[in-house]
Amino acid sequence: MTQTVPTPANAVQQRYRDAEPTEPADWNPVLQVVHEHRSVRRYLPDPVSEATLRLLISAAQSAPTSSNLQVWSVVAVRDAKRRARLADLAGNQDHIRQAPVLLVWTADFARLRQLAEDNDAPLEGADYLESSYVGFIDAALAAQNAVVAAESLGLGTVYIGALRNKPEEVAAELGLPDSVFAVFGLVVGHPDPSEGARVKPRLPQAAVLHHETYDLEAQRDHVTAYETRIAEFYAEQDLAHSWRERVLARLASAASLNGRDRLRESLLGRGFGLR
Amino acid sequence: MTQTVPTPANAVQQRYRDAEPTEPADWNPVLQVVHEHRSVRRYLPDPVSEATLRLLISAAQSAPTSSNLQVWSVVAVRDAKRRARLADLAGNQDHIRQAPVLLVWTADFARLRQLAEDNDAPLEGADYLESSYVGFIDAALAAQNAVVAAESLGLGTVYIGALRNKPEEVAAELGLPDSVFAVFGLVVGHPDPSEGARVKPRLPQAAVLHHETYDLEAQRDHVTAYETRIAEFYAEQDLAHSWRERVLARLASAASLNGRDRLRESLLGRGFGLR
Repeated sequence: MTQTVPTPANAVQQRYRDAEPTEPADWNPVLQVVHEHRSVRRYLPDPVSEATLRLLISAAQSAPTSSNLQVWSVVAVRDAKRRARLADLAGNQDHIRQAPVLLVWTADFARLRQLAEDNDAPLEGADYLESSYVGFIDAALAAQNAVVAAESLGLGTVYIGALRNKPEEVAAELGLPDSVFAVFGLVVGHPDPSEGARVKPRLPQAAVLHHETYDLEAQRDHVTAYETRIAEFYAEQDLAHSWRERVLARLASAASLNGRDRLRESLLGRGFGLR
Repeated sequence: MTQTVPTPANAVQQRYRDAEPTEPADWNPVLQVVHEHRSVRRYLPDPVSEATLRLLISAAQSAPTSSNLQVWSVVAVRDAKRRARLADLAGNQDHIRQAPVLLVWTADFARLRQLAEDNDAPLEGADYLESSYVGFIDAALAAQNAVVAAESLGLGTVYIGALRNKPEEVAAELGLPDSVFAVFGLVVGHPDPSEGARVKPRLPQAAVLHHETYDLEAQRDHVTAYETRIAEFYAEQDLAHSWRERVLARLASAASLNGRDRLRESLLGRGFGLR
């Protein structure tokens, strides 16, 4: 398997499946870990210690946060029954049951609202759509640092966006107060050695990297090239998928959002102003 | 300075300024880089090569992306005049002028809209608020991988959320088509050795990490403890700041959002449905 021969050129090449691998300009253990990411969807029941969890969270808190507002929190769920209920809410994803920890990352304005109330201060800025994005971005930056930290320790991870399918039920399960919203989950655990998922190729770099100004016309050829490269990856996993068909199906309609077409209503109901 | 003695315990301790440093469970070069993050706001004019830029973007593309939609793109701005204009739009942030590269990360549904049109397929899911969050989250996960990669190479970075102050002007400057929105900028360059910014302490870990269910009442004491710890940090930088006062001022009113109270209108105008 490609990822068992982790030379720098291979690590970059497997991400793109370019015809000609190029030797990267520089290399180090950090770039190695980052480039070898893959989502893990089958886990051993082996525990993740409290000390390791604390290290993942100090990594998360080391991420940048907008104006140092720190408008995020995370709920670590270890209880097997609670994980099973959350797995059900997230479209029955069994890896949530298998791995010992589910981290639920939240956009959190409750902490600052409490501070504002205690100080008899206004917090009207929190009622704007902008603030919800700040919370979601803060949570994402923090979570991604935790992912990199976990993978550096040999742990596997997978994000669970499907927690947004049923936000009210997730909030009730975790006792989230008003102004705290579950952005996504992150499963953390020891990969089952038999799972064998490989690094997934991405769009050609030229599709996502623009110089000085954005170029839309160029996208067509890159998407066509990608369709072929990822077909090769799918075939290796015995999947008869087409990226084009999958993304178009994913965003075809309100129904294809699996409940997330209600997200606006859910956020409003949970105390986010979205003005 | 603390960060010149980068033992594992110190690296974690400087992030929290806990009374008693604890030795982390495990340690490696990845955890080291992640924990030593600090935002850099003064740069040398030294160049960042195209090869290095490509490596930062392959790191970014290695981040997870919701359902492999890859609904983000990045515009690399090197042109000094364009950087100067963007610095002006972002509240006159001089580090955008100093460093050789500004990466503008975008939530990008133009690529998929073009694909849908070419295939005569519906893409109604893109018109929902949920999809805007997916784009913002995808961009944040990718950008944070680029930050970690850059710092592993000795480069400095700082996010520029203020690009959202004037979204229409930023879009015009970068030639962004409909359905592409600039989420934030990221300055990348060689830190000026004289800048000396230190690792900023964050809220006590117990404030952001909850077990099984969320605990709001506990937040009060953590915020009080933090106010004292960060005051020590501010004093070292000769700043007479209070975290409490700063965050309450930042979110006090629509006016304190510096134009971002218009974000909803801006996104609607740029082709995001937000239903």
